[in-house]
Amino acid sequence: MPRYRLLIEYHGGPYQGWMKLPGKPTVQAALEEAASKLDGRPVEVFGAGRTDSGVHATGQVAHMDLVTDRGGKVADAMNFHLRPHPIAVLAAEGVNDGFHARFSATQRHYRYVVVNRRADLALERGLAWRVPSKLSAGKMHEAAQAFIGTHDFSTFRDADCQAASPVKTLNEFKVWRDGEHVIFTCRAQSFIHRQVRSMVGSLVEVGRGRHPVSWAKDILDAADRTECGPIAPADGLYLTQVDYD
Amino acid sequence: MPRYRLLIEYHGGPYQGWMKLPGKPTVQAALEEAASKLDGRPVEVFGAGRTDSGVHATGQVAHMDLVTDRGGKVADAMNFHLRPHPIAVLAAEGVNDGFHARFSATQRHYRYVVVNRRADLALERGLAWRVPSKLSAGKMHEAAQAFIGTHDFSTFRDADCQAASPVKTLNEFKVWRDGEHVIFTCRAQSFIHRQVRSMVGSLVEVGRGRHPVSWAKDILDAADRTECGPIAPADGLYLTQVDYD
Repeated sequence: MPRYRLLIEYHGGPYQGWMKLPGKPTVQAALEEAASKLDGRPVEVFGAGRTDSGVHATGQVAHMDLVTDRGGKVADAMNFHLRPHPIAVLAAEGVNDGFHARFSATQRHYRYVVVNRRADLALERGLAWRVPSKLSAGKMHEAAQAFIGTHDFSTFRDADCQAASPVKTLNEFKVWRDGEHVIFTCRAQSFIHRQVRSMVGSLVEVGRGRHPVSWAKDILDAADRTECGPIAPADGLYLTQVDYD
Repeated sequence: MPRYRLLIEYHGGPYQGWMKLPGKPTVQAALEEAASKLDGRPVEVFGAGRTDSGVHATGQVAHMDLVTDRGGKVADAMNFHLRPHPIAVLAAEGVNDGFHARFSATQRHYRYVVVNRRADLALERGLAWRVPSKLSAGKMHEAAQAFIGTHDFSTFRDADCQAASPVKTLNEFKVWRDGEHVIFTCRAQSFIHRQVRSMVGSLVEVGRGRHPVSWAKDILDAADRTECGPIAPADGLYLTQVDYD
């Protein structure tokens, strides 16, 4: 059966995350329903990143096997069957059977968007986290460098996390300001549950001046969930890219 | 009575435009309701740009007179009373009685956002116009230069337009590509009704190759509404800035 690799954008707002959950709206369920209509039989869709409830994607990757070889028509046909879901297949291409969206992924990239202002969000409502206190992007960037490398990330691990180990390797973490926006980007082969939102929420405590830059390393080293800052809301988080060899 | 100048952002989607219309949701009506709650009596809010139904703003300017001098608290108080409207007062400052948001304005800036791709919009739904055909931003930019200067813009004037004259002076029109986004920006002291969307819709006909670059000047010179291309949808249009001396 021909295997297709999909590049997917979605608004996480209406969904209880990526993963299928009986009776709940999820991104995977919407994609599988569309693919099943397309192929005329039940189709499974495997995603690279199991994004949490409300989290968005501009570069999620998934794969699926169809009975019928549809060549270059798969993206358009999927989008037709996905309407009116805020889920779009940006590209689809045939891949060999050895490709697995999740297990073949070498790196995942996330972006977190803060709007640093007092006024409520009008245009970006649901698409960013509004933080009224003046933030220092420079201090947050400096603090975030403590997270790079291989660490026990238990401080930033949700109680529901099903990963075998809290030890992960973070390859990059950048924080910068662009007008009223403060952007956080990070990449790693894999993340534990709510790791990005836990790290961002803790960094914002540094950025608003409640803790010194060195606090980020202190709480990481503590490897203790109770040391974590408030978890940043899902609204601002985007899975932007998944890399493969 | 102290006069305040407001800088306002809004999502045009839920509104029948800026202007008050009996029994209809409009941005002006929402602001006047909030201001009236704040001041404890009916307040009128005067806007610089009478944006059309569905059109957004990141930099609308308005003024209003309050009985009570509230100093620096006006923006926060307005935002409190505006909830849950997708309308945000970004800044408010006291101005002298000679200031009029509409009549003192020397220039209005608009931006139009096209997403040039085949896939439906997920994250930017309602915030941009998706055009599937491949567009040449370079040709559209070149064509748009014919609009600069003082012209009879009857070709780009909506039948409902109440302006005294179709003659306007356009000071700048730029078109460029940023990845899958194609951005149009223009500025003038004032515009006739649906002028920007009419110009953008016509330029897109050039950008997708249905007409040559010279066609933009031809239809402008014709000064004939029936020569205009399709009107671009409201979703992609933003009032971004209003200038004052």
